[in-house]
Amino acid sequence: MKITMAHGSGGKATSELIQEVFAKEFENEILNRMEDSALVKGSQKLAMTTDSFVVTPIVFPGGDIGHLSICGTVNDLLMSGARPQYLTCGFIIEEGTEIDTLKQIAKSMAKTAKAAGIMIVAGDTKVIEGNGGIYINTAGVGFVDETIDISSSNCENGDIVILSGNLGDHHATILSSRLSIENTIKSDCAPLNDMVENLLENKIRIKAMRDVTRGGLGTVLNEFATASSCTIELQEEKIPVSDQVKSFCKILGLDPFYMANEGKMVAVVSKEDSEKALELIRNSKYGENAAIIGSVTQEEAGMVFVNTLIGGKRKIDILYGEGLPRIC
Amino acid sequence: MKITMAHGSGGKATSELIQEVFAKEFENEILNRMEDSALVKGSQKLAMTTDSFVVTPIVFPGGDIGHLSICGTVNDLLMSGARPQYLTCGFIIEEGTEIDTLKQIAKSMAKTAKAAGIMIVAGDTKVIEGNGGIYINTAGVGFVDETIDISSSNCENGDIVILSGNLGDHHATILSSRLSIENTIKSDCAPLNDMVENLLENKIRIKAMRDVTRGGLGTVLNEFATASSCTIELQEEKIPVSDQVKSFCKILGLDPFYMANEGKMVAVVSKEDSEKALELIRNSKYGENAAIIGSVTQEEAGMVFVNTLIGGKRKIDILYGEGLPRIC
Repeated sequence: MKITMAHGSGGKATSELIQEVFAKEFENEILNRMEDSALVKGSQKLAMTTDSFVVTPIVFPGGDIGHLSICGTVNDLLMSGARPQYLTCGFIIEEGTEIDTLKQIAKSMAKTAKAAGIMIVAGDTKVIEGNGGIYINTAGVGFVDETIDISSSNCENGDIVILSGNLGDHHATILSSRLSIENTIKSDCAPLNDMVENLLENKIRIKAMRDVTRGGLGTVLNEFATASSCTIELQEEKIPVSDQVKSFCKILGLDPFYMANEGKMVAVVSKEDSEKALELIRNSKYGENAAIIGSVTQEEAGMVFVNTLIGGKRKIDILYGEGLPRIC
Repeated sequence: MKITMAHGSGGKATSELIQEVFAKEFENEILNRMEDSALVKGSQKLAMTTDSFVVTPIVFPGGDIGHLSICGTVNDLLMSGARPQYLTCGFIIEEGTEIDTLKQIAKSMAKTAKAAGIMIVAGDTKVIEGNGGIYINTAGVGFVDETIDISSSNCENGDIVILSGNLGDHHATILSSRLSIENTIKSDCAPLNDMVENLLENKIRIKAMRDVTRGGLGTVLNEFATASSCTIELQEEKIPVSDQVKSFCKILGLDPFYMANEGKMVAVVSKEDSEKALELIRNSKYGENAAIIGSVTQEEAGMVFVNTLIGGKRKIDILYGEGLPRIC
């Protein structure tokens, strides 16, 4: 069964689609009320975020657009130190989409939301002309302890930069799918609750934290360096990249510094916390390849350098132009 | 200047686009922090909602997709009795979109958000292939007093149904634009804060309330009738429709019961509150044509009837199939 324009009418066809595909998968006491706004419990300090997902192909090794749409928003909330709580999702569905595809995506969203401890409380569905494409927007709300203060502007001289795992897996997966290159690279797409909770519960003072998505590590660290008016210096040999992705990059001329990831984060912590933080991340889900990759110095404000394997020093700029369209 | 795929990279081009187009218009102390999640103040009871907007044309008499994207989410929050507070927006922009168009839309969003007293706290921008189309998702958070209990399942025998103004203006506007029909019909697209605040401040006990958008009045009232297991009976001669929209409907064979509106609401209130509620709505912004259009009876559960001008009784069903694609 395929999506028709009637599924976007707001009437009975829309209602049937919602019941059959989404309500079944996402059901919970708040969503089931089917009012226009969901009513949820509040707290003193809220985190709010939103992300739209336009990745193509919509199903790829290691995930799909549904899984990605939950991970992306959950991770954005986590990066502010919030406990993810409630999520809304808006679907823009092209005519001709197979209802079965939609069901698979809804199932995948429900599974990931459960794993990430976030409740889907409201949704919206629109249908547009086209040929089977799907776009998903998710917006999330989380609660933050009053004591937490994580910000890209908090990096200080001497702080340590930890990366939670291998770079480039998601990017290489999507590009391989598009170019029909056969390999066993899988997207790293994952919710990082366990990792962040471990750091917060163990009172690691996180200065800055960001998931390394579109724009890549280079862009994130430049944002830190600019916001904190500091210099960040990395050691090339410390940066974890799998052998398979390394070869992939060599063949296609890609730079892991600018490749998108969907289950990796970079954290800046004080030097005294850094070894403990590294151990906590390594012992968390999805953190086994974490590494200390550099530190904050004050030599030149607002810049990122990497000390290369062959002894050079290379300036890492923010990504300009297009990494890979529709990577997330 | 046109949108290119590079504007969706997550790097410098994206950042420039955000700064030049969105940050300028939406600037406020929370958004300006430019973190991945916005941190806002909370409350005990939260309302959350989301809506995607795919209307075409993106600019139409009486509004544009930006204005609409704020009104839609603000009105959804209001309908639950919440005070709208914070809003996130996700843009999916087709390549080739004029940056000037985007600027105009951002300006319009900022203006409407200000009028509706809601703060834009987070955003996301994606670029896809295409030809100048724009899709906007907004998600909103509002706070609700613990005492408020508005729900489509609260309608009771004897309650009165009030419609806040003329039906069909938005629908007729979009259809006229698409068919290049010249007339002076304008979209009713508007935020209904003033109207709802007046009702709540004056302690009107609102049983059920809904903005009458996609799917039309017929669909909303059927949802009430089903959720409350009641029958709703309307008087055709009481239902406000402007002369121009009436003629438009006659020519094109449209039924105002299923036409989309973007600045109209229907409220179900107790009989003793109904005259006061009507007066309050009439004295509110956008409420001058409000009317009592019917009442709740218990003759047959879960149905909506209209007593027609010529003395008949017609069953009003939920809209099945397509009203008008991409109406909102």
